[in-house]
Amino acid sequence: MGKGSGMIHPNMATTLNFYTTDCNISSALLQSALDEIVKVTYNCLSVDGDQSTNDMVCVLANGEAGNDEIKAESAEFEVFKKALYIAMMNITKMLAKDGEGATKLLEVRVSGADSLETAITVAKSVVGSNLLKCAIFGADANWGRVLCAVGYADAEFDINKVDVKMSSKAGEIFVCKNGAGIEFSEETAKTVLLEDEITIDISIGTGEFSAAAWGCDLTYDYVKINGDYRS
Amino acid sequence: MGKGSGMIHPNMATTLNFYTTDCNISSALLQSALDEIVKVTYNCLSVDGDQSTNDMVCVLANGEAGNDEIKAESAEFEVFKKALYIAMMNITKMLAKDGEGATKLLEVRVSGADSLETAITVAKSVVGSNLLKCAIFGADANWGRVLCAVGYADAEFDINKVDVKMSSKAGEIFVCKNGAGIEFSEETAKTVLLEDEITIDISIGTGEFSAAAWGCDLTYDYVKINGDYRS
Repeated sequence: MGKGSGMIHPNMATTLNFYTTDCNISSALLQSALDEIVKVTYNCLSVDGDQSTNDMVCVLANGEAGNDEIKAESAEFEVFKKALYIAMMNITKMLAKDGEGATKLLEVRVSGADSLETAITVAKSVVGSNLLKCAIFGADANWGRVLCAVGYADAEFDINKVDVKMSSKAGEIFVCKNGAGIEFSEETAKTVLLEDEITIDISIGTGEFSAAAWGCDLTYDYVKINGDYRS
Repeated sequence: MGKGSGMIHPNMATTLNFYTTDCNISSALLQSALDEIVKVTYNCLSVDGDQSTNDMVCVLANGEAGNDEIKAESAEFEVFKKALYIAMMNITKMLAKDGEGATKLLEVRVSGADSLETAITVAKSVVGSNLLKCAIFGADANWGRVLCAVGYADAEFDINKVDVKMSSKAGEIFVCKNGAGIEFSEETAKTVLLEDEITIDISIGTGEFSAAAWGCDLTYDYVKINGDYRS
């Protein structure tokens, strides 16, 4: 279960989230799984860049499943973590799509990074860009704004190796290869970007790490909701 | 001279700025003055949180004033720095007020900090909040959003010592004392906030350092301009 709307840019501090499981697992390992997964799900979510004062994710396990207690790193622990990751990642996406005023879910996937931290930093930088969020609202394949946010991310990589693709269930367009723009059909781009779930894939090199970040478009309604909050 | 509109959140990287002076001054000291002042002017400016790829501030001195060359820290150097600060601070404010879609200049002043870095960090955090920027557009004295952005600033201070005042040429209202909201007239608040230049004063303790940051409101027009950029 998760609650959130605006003021979402968790750094674990107004999103409230509760996970329950009947798995029999020690609290140390439950905390370890939560710490590992929150880093690549909730902490990769941004509705508006405003951290709340009381973000919270907790997971409760009552052991009713009757399995032998998971007390150490093991195949069972990996299975549990995978299940928890899928649950947390899906609710993270739902929170993004349900952002204040949002009309679209934006998923930014970064691959080829030299470290997980670099992949996360670049993905969060792009998903948090107000300029890009407005372009997505306008269904504008403005790849220059993607590259701009890639460039100001606080991470080291070769901008000449950056490829960018935008996609949705309506199709895909490659917009940037080796750091330079490539020809694409504006008509196809519009068709792709008029969908309500947009993915931007960014490859930044030949490293083995990847990460995703989730956000939404910046719309008239976001401004209206937050300009008129107390009226 | 300065040029800018959107994509402004300088960390000295689309704002182009040129200062000229006839002062006779060594390049080392000219660079030193520029470095010191850019930190508390341009680098405290945010229109939309998006750093550009080519922000630039430079200062050119041709020595035509005929003064003895300023080659060392001195009273003359302090006078020169003060003049340069006033010029750079004023153009920084003009850039903020001229932000894409902006209807208001927002100046956030932080005082009572234990260090200049803390004062700057808190001021930039508040001036960059999308939620607060929408509230300012709506002339809503939503001090909770000020306190929220003060709280998530990456700086150490006692939140129970935070006072907040909002003002404009139409008057002033105290909205928060020692970290807690205080009664104020919503009618007066509206009058104050309907002006086009709003100042938020935040005192965070008894330290001797202060800083300001400049930004603007987040409006329907910002979304329109940047959602329709290439149409």
